[in-house]
Amino acid sequence: MKAFVMQEVGETGFTEKEPPEAGPTDAVIRPTKGLVCTSDVHTVHGAIGERENLTLGHEVVGVVEEVGDQVAKFEPGDRVAVGAITPDWGSAAAQDDHPSQSNEALGGWKYANVKDGTFADYAHVNEADANMAHIPDGVSDEEAVYVTDMMSTGFMGAENAEIPVGGTVAVFAQGPVGLMATKGAALQGAGHIIAVETVQNRQELARTYGADDVVDFAEGDPVEQIMDLTDGEGVDAAVEALGTSGTFEQCVEVTKAGGTISNTGYHGEGEYVNIPREAWGVGMAEKDIVTGLCPGGRLRLQRLLRLLDRDRVDPTHMTTHEFPFDEIDEAFRLMETKEDDIIKPLIHFE
Amino acid sequence: MKAFVMQEVGETGFTEKEPPEAGPTDAVIRPTKGLVCTSDVHTVHGAIGERENLTLGHEVVGVVEEVGDQVAKFEPGDRVAVGAITPDWGSAAAQDDHPSQSNEALGGWKYANVKDGTFADYAHVNEADANMAHIPDGVSDEEAVYVTDMMSTGFMGAENAEIPVGGTVAVFAQGPVGLMATKGAALQGAGHIIAVETVQNRQELARTYGADDVVDFAEGDPVEQIMDLTDGEGVDAAVEALGTSGTFEQCVEVTKAGGTISNTGYHGEGEYVNIPREAWGVGMAEKDIVTGLCPGGRLRLQRLLRLLDRDRVDPTHMTTHEFPFDEIDEAFRLMETKEDDIIKPLIHFE
Amino acid sequence: MKAFVMQEVGETGFTEKEPPEAGPTDAVIRPTKGLVCTSDVHTVHGAIGERENLTLGHEVVGVVEEVGDQVAKFEPGDRVAVGAITPDWGSAAAQDDHPSQSNEALGGWKYANVKDGTFADYAHVNEADANMAHIPDGVSDEEAVYVTDMMSTGFMGAENAEIPVGGTVAVFAQGPVGLMATKGAALQGAGHIIAVETVQNRQELARTYGADDVVDFAEGDPVEQIMDLTDGEGVDAAVEALGTSGTFEQCVEVTKAGGTISNTGYHGEGEYVNIPREAWGVGMAEKDIVTGLCPGGRLRLQRLLRLLDRDRVDPTHMTTHEFPFDEIDEAFRLMETKEDDIIKPLIHFE
Amino acid sequence: MKAFVMQEVGETGFTEKEPPEAGPTDAVIRPTKGLVCTSDVHTVHGAIGERENLTLGHEVVGVVEEVGDQVAKFEPGDRVAVGAITPDWGSAAAQDDHPSQSNEALGGWKYANVKDGTFADYAHVNEADANMAHIPDGVSDEEAVYVTDMMSTGFMGAENAEIPVGGTVAVFAQGPVGLMATKGAALQGAGHIIAVETVQNRQELARTYGADDVVDFAEGDPVEQIMDLTDGEGVDAAVEALGTSGTFEQCVEVTKAGGTISNTGYHGEGEYVNIPREAWGVGMAEKDIVTGLCPGGRLRLQRLLRLLDRDRVDPTHMTTHEFPFDEIDEAFRLMETKEDDIIKPLIHFE
Repeated sequence: MKAFVMQEVGETGFTEKEPPEAGPTDAVIRPTKGLVCTSDVHTVHGAIGERENLTLGHEVVGVVEEVGDQVAKFEPGDRVAVGAITPDWGSAAAQDDHPSQSNEALGGWKYANVKDGTFADYAHVNEADANMAHIPDGVSDEEAVYVTDMMSTGFMGAENAEIPVGGTVAVFAQGPVGLMATKGAALQGAGHIIAVETVQNRQELARTYGADDVVDFAEGDPVEQIMDLTDGEGVDAAVEALGTSGTFEQCVEVTKAGGTISNTGYHGEGEYVNIPREAWGVGMAEKDIVTGLCPGGRLRLQRLLRLLDRDRVDPTHMTTHEFPFDEIDEAFRLMETKEDDIIKPLIHFE
Repeated sequence: MKAFVMQEVGETGFTEKEPPEAGPTDAVIRPTKGLVCTSDVHTVHGAIGERENLTLGHEVVGVVEEVGDQVAKFEPGDRVAVGAITPDWGSAAAQDDHPSQSNEALGGWKYANVKDGTFADYAHVNEADANMAHIPDGVSDEEAVYVTDMMSTGFMGAENAEIPVGGTVAVFAQGPVGLMATKGAALQGAGHIIAVETVQNRQELARTYGADDVVDFAEGDPVEQIMDLTDGEGVDAAVEALGTSGTFEQCVEVTKAGGTISNTGYHGEGEYVNIPREAWGVGMAEKDIVTGLCPGGRLRLQRLLRLLDRDRVDPTHMTTHEFPFDEIDEAFRLMETKEDDIIKPLIHFE
Repeated sequence: MKAFVMQEVGETGFTEKEPPEAGPTDAVIRPTKGLVCTSDVHTVHGAIGERENLTLGHEVVGVVEEVGDQVAKFEPGDRVAVGAITPDWGSAAAQDDHPSQSNEALGGWKYANVKDGTFADYAHVNEADANMAHIPDGVSDEEAVYVTDMMSTGFMGAENAEIPVGGTVAVFAQGPVGLMATKGAALQGAGHIIAVETVQNRQELARTYGADDVVDFAEGDPVEQIMDLTDGEGVDAAVEALGTSGTFEQCVEVTKAGGTISNTGYHGEGEYVNIPREAWGVGMAEKDIVTGLCPGGRLRLQRLLRLLDRDRVDPTHMTTHEFPFDEIDEAFRLMETKEDDIIKPLIHFE
Repeated sequence: MKAFVMQEVGETGFTEKEPPEAGPTDAVIRPTKGLVCTSDVHTVHGAIGERENLTLGHEVVGVVEEVGDQVAKFEPGDRVAVGAITPDWGSAAAQDDHPSQSNEALGGWKYANVKDGTFADYAHVNEADANMAHIPDGVSDEEAVYVTDMMSTGFMGAENAEIPVGGTVAVFAQGPVGLMATKGAALQGAGHIIAVETVQNRQELARTYGADDVVDFAEGDPVEQIMDLTDGEGVDAAVEALGTSGTFEQCVEVTKAGGTISNTGYHGEGEYVNIPREAWGVGMAEKDIVTGLCPGGRLRLQRLLRLLDRDRVDPTHMTTHEFPFDEIDEAFRLMETKEDDIIKPLIHFE
């Protein structure tokens, strides 16, 4: 089969591979639509270390090709969404309500990390009954592919923020995860949503997804702007959706005592992420710092698909570009340069 | 009346002051026993800025001298414990279940901060019905004085850590707050309690209060020792009870993915407290960081006094020294030098 | 001043009373708009026992007339909303995060229960700083009066239900509290909202407020209908908004194992409310039963007012009738008979 | 192999069966020690309906005989404890943090319900990596067998009760689950534990496990006695450990507004379990009712075994009788009659 791989750090390309096989509890699917994630680009650049001919990709929907003999809920031909994170549900961490941390930190993240990813003619799904969901008839593949990562991760950012009904929240950075955190805040009943972003089409989408105010950090210190917008009080919660120590620090600064900082960003650089000591109330201001990795699992996928099925959210506004699988390298190139105001490129496998 | 004050940064001494008066919801008490807190020493050295003739002290029990006309639950002559933290219970933060952050970060901390403290012949109590508790007959003043701060703060460290029954926890530093966090962990049903400390009498007390293992950081990297003691898994929760970025970093390192870091330490120095990026799972390992300031309030005090009344804990092991009020300057001196293996000096007012 | 009172069980009418006075932490307000609540009608009929010349009413907005000398946040002339429930914020229950249960069960419910209510030329507000909120300029009195009880209680029903994002919920009865629970479920990100109601204008409003399906119990067993709508799974959560054992039982039956039953209804009759034993999983199916009394407090009111200010919800669809204060007896009559499809009657005081 | 079965409702006896085989993720164990549970007796009497030659028993420790080829953590010869409840960890309920409700209400309860139990020469374990735990060297089989159900269920009763540190709790009935709920309350830091029981050896054990007071319902209304012991306030939490509507009602009555009723009892009779309407605050007193089925899983078992390994609890006080497997019918007879002050009979398989 054809697979789009990271040959080594810095090198990508197509290669031929043996198709995967399904163990007793697994499935093999044939992807129909996929999305390229910024983390794929980071991976190519060595963020998780050296890899050899590792198939890239982890956001995908498709059709079931084969199931193991212990799989009960799916059969070949089923149209399914597969979680970007595919936990080991019997692991201690999953039993402790942290399935994304199966067996080790971030252990639920397998695709394009510890096993081949989904940018290929076929992809393997571990614990298929637990890690896939049927796509409802009323939901297109183009929509459904967003539940696998962007909606699950972004909404998690808002859920972890524990925003009270009518509360205030600031979401730092309006890439696709940040946009979905903004939408997630709206879905949690936030009363005042402040998005931080400087790119114009992202600012506009932020408003589409529920932001009441958009703070442009190119026009002044975002902390000051947010304090002004909240009458000096700060926000009940801040969501970090970029992955830099600088934005993280700003999150701590704008959050009121007793509030929550919810981190969704992948922090790829530096020895430390810094907590500003005084803004943190010298360690006693009850500003909790919460993090998470994209929740996976059939139940999560079903719930997110239900939101699509009932038109609670339209993630396809984020699909700024489309490519056939053959041209996926161009999608990677654009995701790296962020040229042409790209947000998410949709990959068509057929 | 006589008051022991911070005349200016670096200077302490006795002075004469007008006794406080009780507003309609307030009380005035006559202290009988008090404890000197390390934070009093920090205050003298300028940790919270300049102050002029500010009465020191915030850990006290005493007898009610006067109550305002709206006070319903107390009358002169009652034997009471007063919270070190005396929140404004109608404030937005208190309504949001963060009373210690009344009106502003750390706003419940009034004694020896924004108003005169308790090392005086008389002390003022705001919202007396809500911020004092009667001491049961079976509890001595010498015991009761520990509920006002050390037990409340230390136990909070364990409660915030969300230790599962049978779970594992490491408590960094075994000063009085750390010792009470160790005891708190035992009271939460922890299955393996690891204390980190190098001073011998504190190590011994840690075992008295429930530590299964004591890690001496003078004998090697405490992170390595804790990983060894937990078969490489790390702990479900770590409590920081010192207030340095170094110990905080170690807390993040020894906590397993999905676990909790509970900070009780006052971080008095540096621009930042550092989160080690990789050990933090690049911001996605679901290691929550939780902080708190000593919980106050009548209900809290009553619950802690109940534990004393039923002999669930004996905090008086920490009373290594005793002084009459007249000699409180010597108690301050020892708390600064930590000479003579001092843990807590008890002050007798009568 | 003029007051609309319950003279005795079964008798209402206007009377003259002395205006209230403000103690040191209190306020007196002059009502401008009010709403009649079904519970007022129950009270008249003896639900809470005998009362003599008790002023009725607890849903009100108005203008501050007088404040006590300890009141810091309000002054005469301020336009304010007052919580229907006015807790004692220093009470043990409030310190335990249950302010509505101040001092005793339901102890935060003072108006038209243990003190005069708000259907009068003037009304008294205890702990004014904590129990009132300023109405933003962009919010009319006609809207704001809904935050005092209907929005706070109904939204609480949805919040207590702990509906997961994308989860399923059934709301039993679409009176004003049920309608706001339906809206509350939408604000919590529910993926499938099923309203149970038989009156047509309430069915329509349920859809306006976010119901995906409306089950008419006059057309068949609502339990069966809900099981059909959820493919036999039942719902993640059910909200009881009527106050009968029958609907409560249905809530238990339609909730899946591991789900939540959130009660908002006032259960006025019978010795018991019944839990159906088998549907409850013989006491082991992890179907939690949660109850609540309208959350009060300045913070809560501010957050709800923020939702109005940003047009997240329009409660005025429920205002089916309007009366001058002089004709309030007609509003009471209609609320009793439920004639003319009444939902909420708005009272104009000026 | 030899198995002790329920031949039909009311009939028990030994029979010969084919030994179980391990599927790819399963194990087969050879029991060494077991305990008879009152629920086994209920099952024999038809509580869960008719069964034919169903092997009884669900509390067991033993030695691994065989593992499937997907099992990674165990191998033949390992000494293990097996959860009485063996969830399907990939099920929607498990993903929703309710593993004991796998696939359907109580769906994690498989032994002696939907598959053969553990009173046999060999027993089958589904999802072995997730549902067994190694027994530490320092823990005997006689102790370890208590983690499989009694400790897990009883402690759950205390955990679900959300007892605050220093809070008050009443535990109704001191059978083995109630005794472990009493111990669990002590492990949660309760400040006042009241046990309700009339049998003398159970009263004594209740004190051994941490009860401060024992209320004998044969000597007067337990509700009145508990109200007296709590100065009329009631308790923060009540645990039901009997399974009758009467004790459940008493739990609601003694719990203060804002408190929690935690049900562990199996309610085997009647159409309804009754909530007393007035004591429940007419559905608005914020008295939550929480239920649960014994938590299973390797992590849970490990944590409980850790408590045994460090001598935090000695469950063997409850072992009042011992029998070889051959004489298990006598153990069943005594558990039915409760003769001879039996609490738990230990079964020796070797």
